[in-house]
Amino acid sequence: MLRFVTIEGGDGSGKTRHITLLDEYLDSRAVPKVITREPGHTPLGKELRRLLFEGGPESLSDETELFLILADRAQHVREVIRPAMKEGRLVVSDRFADSTLAYQGYGRGMDLELLHRLNLVATGGIMPELTIILDCPVEVALARAAERLGTQAVREDRFEAEGVEFQQRVRDGFLKLAAAEPSRYVVVRSDGPIAETRKQVQQIVAERLDARTGGA
Amino acid sequence: MLRFVTIEGGDGSGKTRHITLLDEYLDSRAVPKVITREPGHTPLGKELRRLLFEGGPESLSDETELFLILADRAQHVREVIRPAMKEGRLVVSDRFADSTLAYQGYGRGMDLELLHRLNLVATGGIMPELTIILDCPVEVALARAAERLGTQAVREDRFEAEGVEFQQRVRDGFLKLAAAEPSRYVVVRSDGPIAETRKQVQQIVAERLDARTGGA
Repeated sequence: MLRFVTIEGGDGSGKTRHITLLDEYLDSRAVPKVITREPGHTPLGKELRRLLFEGGPESLSDETELFLILADRAQHVREVIRPAMKEGRLVVSDRFADSTLAYQGYGRGMDLELLHRLNLVATGGIMPELTIILDCPVEVALARAAERLGTQAVREDRFEAEGVEFQQRVRDGFLKLAAAEPSRYVVVRSDGPIAETRKQVQQIVAERLDARTGGA
Repeated sequence: MLRFVTIEGGDGSGKTRHITLLDEYLDSRAVPKVITREPGHTPLGKELRRLLFEGGPESLSDETELFLILADRAQHVREVIRPAMKEGRLVVSDRFADSTLAYQGYGRGMDLELLHRLNLVATGGIMPELTIILDCPVEVALARAAERLGTQAVREDRFEAEGVEFQQRVRDGFLKLAAAEPSRYVVVRSDGPIAETRKQVQQIVAERLDARTGGA
């Protein structure tokens, strides 16, 4: 049964766009759903997102950043994700526990076993049945992020500001996670035509949704 | 060498008053110092303290509360405590890692070994050489807190609102911590005359300060 899907990937990998397209697809199938994101979906999370992103990369220690993200996740699970799952709605989250492994673990070099354990405390054991990783060469992703910076009134955030090598470690981290647990993760390239990525995301979600119907 | 002292105890145990008195005593001895507190000493911490205390007891999950406190501590250590210690100043903190063991561990029932490990991440391994626990029967402490509520424009916070049984577990927790590591902890009763508690706190700090001078 498909109850919880997460969309993961580096900065500029196209998550926001493809979650919007997936939202439209789920609407077309009349799937009851909640589209959410980390950090920042709950009232507390909005404040934490601001605290995370308003300072420059040097304003918070790595450990402070980690605990703020985990506080956001703990509240998100208990206030949004778990209640929506209990109501039988499909939860689609833009980032979740895997982002902590990729960014703080592979990106910042924090201990992965510790991060797994902290994720378990934050999530209360709730994990997605399907995680789609939007994968994109770092140069393409950063060019997209730069384009967004040029056309919208947004500032580079603390992760985008880390530069190419950090983003490369994050990308490699996501791919390692996917390789280690192929039953949960699906990697979709997102540097080609948008329509192609959209089609692949839809197919993956459709297969899991139809498997649910078939198995019920 | 005495570089870091923490004052711990339950709500209403007299920490604020006795830290002010200790501050005056250290001034009288011209000890270079920083008087600080958790949560809420750094700019980030002020925002986190507000997020922790502005909602009612039900507004945050236990795990959210824990991670917010750890985020405050991680930033506090790196922005305030470690720099002050490096400058050779004596740091006196109103609450630190032991409060997490007493409140979230003994009070809320979270796993103590996990909390020890999380404290280690948050503190980066910095621990006080001396921890004074102000110990006071819960009834006396809550009556004091109620008096403060009556005379000042402050609201009961999420911990005070937990009531007698919770505060009793916190008090017992502090006493267990002290019994397990007598070289670091000193328990001082704080339900008698203020002058008596002040005298004991001063004596303990003076002994450690003089031991530093003698050993140098």
